[in-house]
Amino acid sequence: MSQALLVIDMQRDFCEAGGYAAACGLDIALLRQPIEPTGRLIAAARQNGIAVIYTREGHRPDLADCHPAKLARSAACGASIGAHASLGRHLVRGEPGHDVVPELAPAAGDPIVDKPGYGAFYQTDLELLLQARGTTHLYVTGVTTDICVHSTLREAIDRGYECVTVADACAAADVGIHSAALGLIEGPEGPILGRVRDTATVLADWGRGQPAAASNNANQGALT
Amino acid sequence: MSQALLVIDMQRDFCEAGGYAAACGLDIALLRQPIEPTGRLIAAARQNGIAVIYTREGHRPDLADCHPAKLARSAACGASIGAHASLGRHLVRGEPGHDVVPELAPAAGDPIVDKPGYGAFYQTDLELLLQARGTTHLYVTGVTTDICVHSTLREAIDRGYECVTVADACAAADVGIHSAALGLIEGPEGPILGRVRDTATVLADWGRGQPAAASNNANQGALT
Amino acid sequence: MSQALLVIDMQRDFCEAGGYAAACGLDIALLRQPIEPTGRLIAAARQNGIAVIYTREGHRPDLADCHPAKLARSAACGASIGAHASLGRHLVRGEPGHDVVPELAPAAGDPIVDKPGYGAFYQTDLELLLQARGTTHLYVTGVTTDICVHSTLREAIDRGYECVTVADACAAADVGIHSAALGLIEGPEGPILGRVRDTATVLADWGRGQPAAASNNANQGALT
Amino acid sequence: MSQALLVIDMQRDFCEAGGYAAACGLDIALLRQPIEPTGRLIAAARQNGIAVIYTREGHRPDLADCHPAKLARSAACGASIGAHASLGRHLVRGEPGHDVVPELAPAAGDPIVDKPGYGAFYQTDLELLLQARGTTHLYVTGVTTDICVHSTLREAIDRGYECVTVADACAAADVGIHSAALGLIEGPEGPILGRVRDTATVLADWGRGQPAAASNNANQGALT
Repeated sequence: MSQALLVIDMQRDFCEAGGYAAACGLDIALLRQPIEPTGRLIAAARQNGIAVIYTREGHRPDLADCHPAKLARSAACGASIGAHASLGRHLVRGEPGHDVVPELAPAAGDPIVDKPGYGAFYQTDLELLLQARGTTHLYVTGVTTDICVHSTLREAIDRGYECVTVADACAAADVGIHSAALGLIEGPEGPILGRVRDTATVLADWGRGQPAAASNNANQGALT
Repeated sequence: MSQALLVIDMQRDFCEAGGYAAACGLDIALLRQPIEPTGRLIAAARQNGIAVIYTREGHRPDLADCHPAKLARSAACGASIGAHASLGRHLVRGEPGHDVVPELAPAAGDPIVDKPGYGAFYQTDLELLLQARGTTHLYVTGVTTDICVHSTLREAIDRGYECVTVADACAAADVGIHSAALGLIEGPEGPILGRVRDTATVLADWGRGQPAAASNNANQGALT
Repeated sequence: MSQALLVIDMQRDFCEAGGYAAACGLDIALLRQPIEPTGRLIAAARQNGIAVIYTREGHRPDLADCHPAKLARSAACGASIGAHASLGRHLVRGEPGHDVVPELAPAAGDPIVDKPGYGAFYQTDLELLLQARGTTHLYVTGVTTDICVHSTLREAIDRGYECVTVADACAAADVGIHSAALGLIEGPEGPILGRVRDTATVLADWGRGQPAAASNNANQGALT
Repeated sequence: MSQALLVIDMQRDFCEAGGYAAACGLDIALLRQPIEPTGRLIAAARQNGIAVIYTREGHRPDLADCHPAKLARSAACGASIGAHASLGRHLVRGEPGHDVVPELAPAAGDPIVDKPGYGAFYQTDLELLLQARGTTHLYVTGVTTDICVHSTLREAIDRGYECVTVADACAAADVGIHSAALGLIEGPEGPILGRVRDTATVLADWGRGQPAAASNNANQGALT
């Protein structure tokens, strides 16, 4: 068994004023809520020898890796990818807004996967990173619960990973959407997309040296 | 522009008594609701020269293509993949339950994509089928809205396709989950995962010879 | 450590009169040479608990999974994919020519991977089959050494598998091309694409319960 | 029709003293031969509005994206990936040896694809870059003909691209291996892996505004 903590798209563009999400009219305060619990998960992961892998959504400066349909959708959302703003060009690699928020800055040696899609496996080396280290269990955190967290979770599930989505270490731009997205994971069929746990449960499980996914006491409190 | 209608997993195992979904305790009546509108979409697609592509979820008889984590989750849901039932072994290729429901039986020449994952692009030739015919627009229907429809939609979105999810031609085993899943598609950021339309709107757009995704009058009625 | 024997495209279309290869003007006698040694490898694999995985190159009857460029190349080679011949339509699934040669007929339960490309990982579930069983070592056999064997070998090497190409259990339509293709595997840089061994060496290594790739005494005799 | 010129792995690590290839004992003079003709192709591509896409083979500094089998093979070749040398650590991103040779330095805006495998499509965004711009025709150049050029060519062929390998703009560490690798492309079956042309032919075809792949007069001179 080898575990990894995925920190998805906790970038300034999603979590700070002047970034892409703010330009879309999203509530940044909600998107910042995962920062504190994710910080605790990162610290505990390091103590327990669990890899911490970051992803960042963004594109090459000439947008050569952005499908026309995605570019058009970003315009429809009110914040065109590549447009200029106070954190630099929206969702463009190398710009200030593309960085991980300073509160969760990666340590030297943490892999960072730059991703052009919502799913972190699409056209990236994430699967190689996981395979090369023999990863079997993933803990999924970040923003947004409904888009990049969910797309990545689904790719991971299809690839055979045991997945735990950490409810309070994820966020969407709307509380109802966040709850709805979590509700799909352990849905009417059962835990078809893995398990949902809160940070406290994951930390307790790691402290006992066992994977959180194996615990039977589902903690659904975070869903309500 | 080249369009295709995706009919996802409208199999007897999900839509008939004695199948996988029923064994999981799901409400088959809900899962059968897409049959009628999808039948109309299929007929119209053929009239308009739009390809109809079917997917079926299922595994090789020895389950060699089933990740252990997926097999364990099916057991946790109450219906182990490969277990015997009145429609044959659950989600196994070649068994009666694996067939598309007779009401929507594929015509000769319709591509059928047998998929081992929830997402229809995972370890299949779907992307090749779409690329070889120059497909640009996808209409997504089938079951379940929250699992296989959503996973496939997300893969399609990342690959650059213009997508319309046809609300009443999809279903989940729970009305709330169905609505929640549709609500993620045109969410707080906007139409980030494409558009949601109902069958009537799609049929009207096709009748006018234009892609439904291009219409501006969002029909959200199906979401409520 | 988990090993698998790959038997690539040992189909009637490549190895019998009236098939695709014969229509291209290739020397079928050469392409039949792997039948005997591969038969011995298959028997030994079964004795040693090594999985035997077959691939078949071919397309859907409507050629919806055939890129236009591939179709045009087959015409330039003198045998259009889908054209009618005495073994049925060239390289079309379900036709007699698409079957594995009877001398190497798969046993019940052997996975068969139907592939639309030269490389067996492209748009198939081969990677899933290998991952789900924890495969680490591959023995590669079949036709043709220069095309489908090499493309598949290269995909396997990039995916981290330890690979042995079994020289006399592969063949090309030209002796010089066969030797040239084998010569690329352990080339000037060293064993950059794995090892080349002959059937006798592999059988001896299996008999000692060790993977052939680990043996240090390179047997280059088959190359000359 | 949209064309792109691929410049594969023309890095200091392969083409300069003190790099990976030299440490493997390879003949750097041979590997430098593509520099001059590739420079002419790049200049002509820019004049003709043909995209120039570079690849670089290399790994993350902690080698987290290097399969154990690949690392072991590099050691067997005499130059472990990550080992220190006068051009920095072998095949590690960010080191001097990882750069493209200065004679062929990319222009601002040229996409550079950093690749962990021999094939440039493996775990990279190359396919996305090609799809997003509607690329249909590829011209393949670089080092080494037998390894990274061939693996990439085969991936491109399976994905449906029309490919021309530019004979004198590629090189291997051995003249015989270079010729052998080119000989597989237009082999006994015909142009099964596309066409082989020399730089002069490609430049002449571009000058006439037509894709080199369409020319019928095969120029095999470069093979001898």
